[in-house]
Amino acid sequence: MRFHTRKWIKPEDLNPNGTLFGGRLLEWIDEEAALYAIIQLENPKTVTKYISEIDFISSAKQGEIVEIGIEVVKFGTASLTLKCEVRNKMTRQTVIKVDKIIMVSLDNNGNPEPHGKHKVEFVKDRLNET
Amino acid sequence: MRFHTRKWIKPEDLNPNGTLFGGRLLEWIDEEAALYAIIQLENPKTVTKYISEIDFISSAKQGEIVEIGIEVVKFGTASLTLKCEVRNKMTRQTVIKVDKIIMVSLDNNGNPEPHGKHKVEFVKDRLNET
Amino acid sequence: MRFHTRKWIKPEDLNPNGTLFGGRLLEWIDEEAALYAIIQLENPKTVTKYISEIDFISSAKQGEIVEIGIEVVKFGTASLTLKCEVRNKMTRQTVIKVDKIIMVSLDNNGNPEPHGKHKVEFVKDRLNET
Amino acid sequence: MRFHTRKWIKPEDLNPNGTLFGGRLLEWIDEEAALYAIIQLENPKTVTKYISEIDFISSAKQGEIVEIGIEVVKFGTASLTLKCEVRNKMTRQTVIKVDKIIMVSLDNNGNPEPHGKHKVEFVKDRLNET
Amino acid sequence: MRFHTRKWIKPEDLNPNGTLFGGRLLEWIDEEAALYAIIQLENPKTVTKYISEIDFISSAKQGEIVEIGIEVVKFGTASLTLKCEVRNKMTRQTVIKVDKIIMVSLDNNGNPEPHGKHKVEFVKDRLNET
Amino acid sequence: MRFHTRKWIKPEDLNPNGTLFGGRLLEWIDEEAALYAIIQLENPKTVTKYISEIDFISSAKQGEIVEIGIEVVKFGTASLTLKCEVRNKMTRQTVIKVDKIIMVSLDNNGNPEPHGKHKVEFVKDRLNET
Repeated sequence: MRFHTRKWIKPEDLNPNGTLFGGRLLEWIDEEAALYAIIQLENPKTVTKYISEIDFISSAKQGEIVEIGIEVVKFGTASLTLKCEVRNKMTRQTVIKVDKIIMVSLDNNGNPEPHGKHKVEFVKDRLNET
Repeated sequence: MRFHTRKWIKPEDLNPNGTLFGGRLLEWIDEEAALYAIIQLENPKTVTKYISEIDFISSAKQGEIVEIGIEVVKFGTASLTLKCEVRNKMTRQTVIKVDKIIMVSLDNNGNPEPHGKHKVEFVKDRLNET
Repeated sequence: MRFHTRKWIKPEDLNPNGTLFGGRLLEWIDEEAALYAIIQLENPKTVTKYISEIDFISSAKQGEIVEIGIEVVKFGTASLTLKCEVRNKMTRQTVIKVDKIIMVSLDNNGNPEPHGKHKVEFVKDRLNET
Repeated sequence: MRFHTRKWIKPEDLNPNGTLFGGRLLEWIDEEAALYAIIQLENPKTVTKYISEIDFISSAKQGEIVEIGIEVVKFGTASLTLKCEVRNKMTRQTVIKVDKIIMVSLDNNGNPEPHGKHKVEFVKDRLNET
Repeated sequence: MRFHTRKWIKPEDLNPNGTLFGGRLLEWIDEEAALYAIIQLENPKTVTKYISEIDFISSAKQGEIVEIGIEVVKFGTASLTLKCEVRNKMTRQTVIKVDKIIMVSLDNNGNPEPHGKHKVEFVKDRLNET
Repeated sequence: MRFHTRKWIKPEDLNPNGTLFGGRLLEWIDEEAALYAIIQLENPKTVTKYISEIDFISSAKQGEIVEIGIEVVKFGTASLTLKCEVRNKMTRQTVIKVDKIIMVSLDNNGNPEPHGKHKVEFVKDRLNET
């Protein structure tokens, strides 16, 4: 799993009990899955279709830093299935785990569109090919 | 199911494709589940422990209004299991459905604490009892 | 009066004295009035024209939950007059009261447009009529 | 009336009809009144107690700039009454007018506290006095 | 230098150490420079091209009020060079200083466009001229 | 240079001209520098002291994805000097470049505190050492 985006937990990210607000964490995960899928599928019209069960394993506090990891599970015809883990850089604990996030590639009318991708590509490889 | 909170979809709630950003919707659901549980369990230290799979059934557009419904599934010892549905007031379509959101009541040390509740109470009934 | 939307007071909603920021509360009221009027008048181009005097009766603290109530005062030709009350679910106190919020229905050129409505309708009644 | 704070209307400040969201404008006014009162009364624990009727005279669009003017109406024992006007720098139209915003100075227990002020002071005059 | 916009430091503006988040301050400065340039150049398509070095001289705390000053350094053909200082109204300390912020006026294709301005104008003078 | 955090440009990140708001980009850079320094220096009380000149090389549009790269320039006694580049994942263009961001490690009284670090460490190496 590759961990890219990091977040510094600020007062605006807290619930009233002073720990990381779960809703904010879900927002971060959804954005990370979306942008990962958009880069892989090379289609900006890629939307979240399904998220499997979410376990809130540990919490995080103000001033702590979390990082969000994404890994490809499967390339479908018009879909891309990802898994996600969020880790706390300070305590090294897992904060949350999600086994399946299904992203779907859409055409201009909002219907699923085959993306023709079968494996993870890195931008530098794409550049080499041209 | 009782539908309380309503949201008016504004530009700040959109993804770059111009439809309701999934992450924002998850944030709204998590907040609604939390405040519903806090009112029922009469304990402000109530946190989200688990969310079952989430199906994004239809989307919503700028200017549309969604309403968030919550229903109790089960009272546990220290937990409360809720289900949630979000509906689009304009199109009357279901936007999202979540079968189980498990909220847990915590004591001051952050450990699960029995809440002693067994059924849904309304504030006016509580007031009648005193 | 019907109380729908609820808000959980988070750190981002506080003024620097640690109580609910008045400006945030006004923002919540204006949104609730707007979406209530939009649903009743079935016209998304409905804007706030006038708000009568606002009394800040009691405050609310981080972690408390408020609910926003709206009631119709009068249907005008192109307008809808609402009243609003915000209550604290924890302390049961009234937070704020506004006697008149005048919403106006606009046509595509931004001019007042008669809405043809005379009484409160519920979505389920509208569905029955069709 | 002195106009200080200016705001550039960005997408996050719009209602779904694409004009300045009234709730955002109310938030800006409340913040400006609060900080004006805090500077004059030299007490950070100054809160909004009352806002007189608000007329939404004209709207403003994305990319336009508004400026917020505040003027003292009256010094009370523990209060300060302000008036407010918001102007559109592009169209030179008045956006909103509020005749009375009553701010109250509080002591540490949250009770009104006499502030001992009788006229508008400028920081440079205060510095001259010392 | 003229100080216009003021900001009241709220919980949402803090870094996790409880002082004003530097990123928020930079956001405020950039907005103030942009709107100042837009008013002077009378062109809403004015963008930030360059910011000279930024010294964080002192910090600011929750509840304090800062004011943002802007002064014109130079009118270029398609550009306007500004300098900026942010002061803490409570402690009277300088928070930040920036010697050069270069704003550029663009045409509809996004290319630099001569703005034909050579000195600071005030709106009232412009009105007198017509 | 290592690129970690990615951002998906949403309506709330735009200036009124519909391109990425410079102030938002500066906020993102400051946060990324802060969290990078906190992880390296193992001190959460690390603040931004200085940012060298900033060149806005190209812009970015709604729906595009940018990634933020950070590289260590120098370890000082109480400071850490970083350089930063932001790239557009879609157009492969550089959006912004900053040669020096000086972060300073503070003790509990807010004074610079030697951090005792001399080279970049990765969390997994730290774990191996114990």
